[in-house]
Amino acid sequence: MWRENKNLSLNIKAASKYLEIEPEKLYDLLAKREITQNRVLYQDLFHFNTGVSQIESGSVLHQMDSGFELIRGFPKIRRAMILEPAIEKHFLHTDTVCVEEKMNGYNVRVIAIDDNPVALTRRGFVCPYSTEKIREMISGGFFRDHPDLVLHGEMVGPDNPYIPKDIYDVDSIAFFVFDIRHKGTGRPLPVDRRREVVRDYGFMQVPFFGEFKKEEAAPKIHRIIRELGEKSHEGVVIKDPQMIDSPIKYTSSQSNCADLEHAFEFYNDVGRDYLFSRVVREGFQAVEWNEGPQEIEKRSLRLGKSILLPMIDTIRKIGKGDRVSNDVQIRVNGLDTISELEDFFNRQGLEVLFSDPERTADGYIVKIKKLNKSTNDKTDAIWKGDLW
Amino acid sequence: MWRENKNLSLNIKAASKYLEIEPEKLYDLLAKREITQNRVLYQDLFHFNTGVSQIESGSVLHQMDSGFELIRGFPKIRRAMILEPAIEKHFLHTDTVCVEEKMNGYNVRVIAIDDNPVALTRRGFVCPYSTEKIREMISGGFFRDHPDLVLHGEMVGPDNPYIPKDIYDVDSIAFFVFDIRHKGTGRPLPVDRRREVVRDYGFMQVPFFGEFKKEEAAPKIHRIIRELGEKSHEGVVIKDPQMIDSPIKYTSSQSNCADLEHAFEFYNDVGRDYLFSRVVREGFQAVEWNEGPQEIEKRSLRLGKSILLPMIDTIRKIGKGDRVSNDVQIRVNGLDTISELEDFFNRQGLEVLFSDPERTADGYIVKIKKLNKSTNDKTDAIWKGDLW
Repeated sequence: MWRENKNLSLNIKAASKYLEIEPEKLYDLLAKREITQNRVLYQDLFHFNTGVSQIESGSVLHQMDSGFELIRGFPKIRRAMILEPAIEKHFLHTDTVCVEEKMNGYNVRVIAIDDNPVALTRRGFVCPYSTEKIREMISGGFFRDHPDLVLHGEMVGPDNPYIPKDIYDVDSIAFFVFDIRHKGTGRPLPVDRRREVVRDYGFMQVPFFGEFKKEEAAPKIHRIIRELGEKSHEGVVIKDPQMIDSPIKYTSSQSNCADLEHAFEFYNDVGRDYLFSRVVREGFQAVEWNEGPQEIEKRSLRLGKSILLPMIDTIRKIGKGDRVSNDVQIRVNGLDTISELEDFFNRQGLEVLFSDPERTADGYIVKIKKLNKSTNDKTDAIWKGDLW
Repeated sequence: MWRENKNLSLNIKAASKYLEIEPEKLYDLLAKREITQNRVLYQDLFHFNTGVSQIESGSVLHQMDSGFELIRGFPKIRRAMILEPAIEKHFLHTDTVCVEEKMNGYNVRVIAIDDNPVALTRRGFVCPYSTEKIREMISGGFFRDHPDLVLHGEMVGPDNPYIPKDIYDVDSIAFFVFDIRHKGTGRPLPVDRRREVVRDYGFMQVPFFGEFKKEEAAPKIHRIIRELGEKSHEGVVIKDPQMIDSPIKYTSSQSNCADLEHAFEFYNDVGRDYLFSRVVREGFQAVEWNEGPQEIEKRSLRLGKSILLPMIDTIRKIGKGDRVSNDVQIRVNGLDTISELEDFFNRQGLEVLFSDPERTADGYIVKIKKLNKSTNDKTDAIWKGDLW
């Protein structure tokens, strides 16, 4: 029965032993596509699409001639709603906390395969574009010195197929390390050790705002968040210096509303939870910051506009016969990466249109339209008389 | 095996024949509690908690010595998002449409059992309070003349355990008929025939705004909706005079925002879809009414405030150690109805606190606190440092 699956090249018996998952269970996970094989660039990677026993979703099993290695998924970072009690309750193993910026881009993990850096997305896929970019920024030397480590970081900047942002001092796209973890266990380096290693290798890393006594941290972080908010930056991650307690996050209202504004251009593609959770954050922050009637009125208007304005624009556009799309661009050295990325998107079932590559001094720019079928179709149907 | 279910008094063989559902299937529906027996006041009613073949959810099977009758659930009324094309596309069998008010209360269906009117909720339960009230308003005579008919109507007014509203000219609570349908088939009376019957028996019925040519209806309804909105009334239902095409609804922004305002006092008990659908309606109506920047700003502020203000109040209250509850009141003649209603709520798993009855000239007032456990517990936990 196992033979039927022709593309399957995972050595189930050996993988089962390495992962400590029964062979039948492992076969079942493959059959249900809860574990799937990577198809673009590297075939010897297998992603966990759901969490399995101790292994979180997004983890990647790498099958090598010499055996296996497991790249653990990004650990979930939970959110503080009211900072002061959250810090007090959550951090049990430390008297101080480190505060770093939570940058707004997309997460990648970087490992090396045959000495070449490879970028894995949050879900565990090899992204060809991120991999090309990472290879310009991260030398293989780091991984020769530390074959056991995985770099976790944020890809930010305007030439970005996922979350393009102009708000950072980044011309095209850059990789900012925020975590380094061991393969297999996922055990993190302590904050100062990680920042030292990153500095030594000359990589970029997320801004560090300081290490504060726990009982003094909340007002300090509030001040940081207000400043970040004014620049439309997202927020902070608060960390145990030793990384024993897990990190928690806390974000600005401006970034929250900017998320909504972007999402509601494609209102019918937005998850219901996406809206609800962002709305609730606004309520808690207004209370936490002890806002008066005028500030609450300003916040209400900001929230209302961030939802309605993009939706109104979209409905009007589609009423005139246009279509809405999420427009992004990438900047690449060679034509190969373009077709690999197109392949990568198509395999995920995304509807994307790639422009002809425009030549630049050292490569190409490609504009990409991501079509949001649900919003376009639903809105068009309502203009034609469909009921909700 | 069927004998194990001691309380089950449905004659499965006979019911199976009447409903044209196989006995095994019917038994299975009972076992899975997709059909359940009524427990308060009448035991010979069986509610359909999900739709089964042609029978919609909320339908009620009445088992009598003489056989069965089926009271069909409320038909779903779909919503027009952009009125003009919706009317044109939806109404195929008529040149005109009737417009009636959609009042904001709770739906009940009224039948008679042993000549006594009985009120069934939307889900098909016998509500003891609604039944007492209905018996003050609806005489058994109607059902003696028309044993085959079911009255569909809205219970509105302030003395209301579900949706109390002060916006109508109703002192305590009143029943407004909006539909009359045949048992078994659910076939409705035509609009004018239904209004005539209701008038003849002296019952109250929902306001009638007129019968309009289809192509002239949209602007007329827009004007009606603006006026209703100013009074915080909910909206309209648009009907084929012959009731061959199903009715559709269209509502005001003010009522939409009032719903949100009420719901967000208990933000964590609100369904995610509840928020999303109401937000989307605001976007469509702004476009449909061709609003300019100032009107859109006003609408955004109204939307933002209707979500944030009640949530902020709730978070503050709970932070001070209070608890939030949905406070309603009922007005009854006798003490029996009070304990029956308490029993009715408890059986549904609602957490309710009933005050001691206060004597009035002709009965009692009871205040009821409906506790919203999820909102209270979640908010309190966050104040104590829980993460989201």
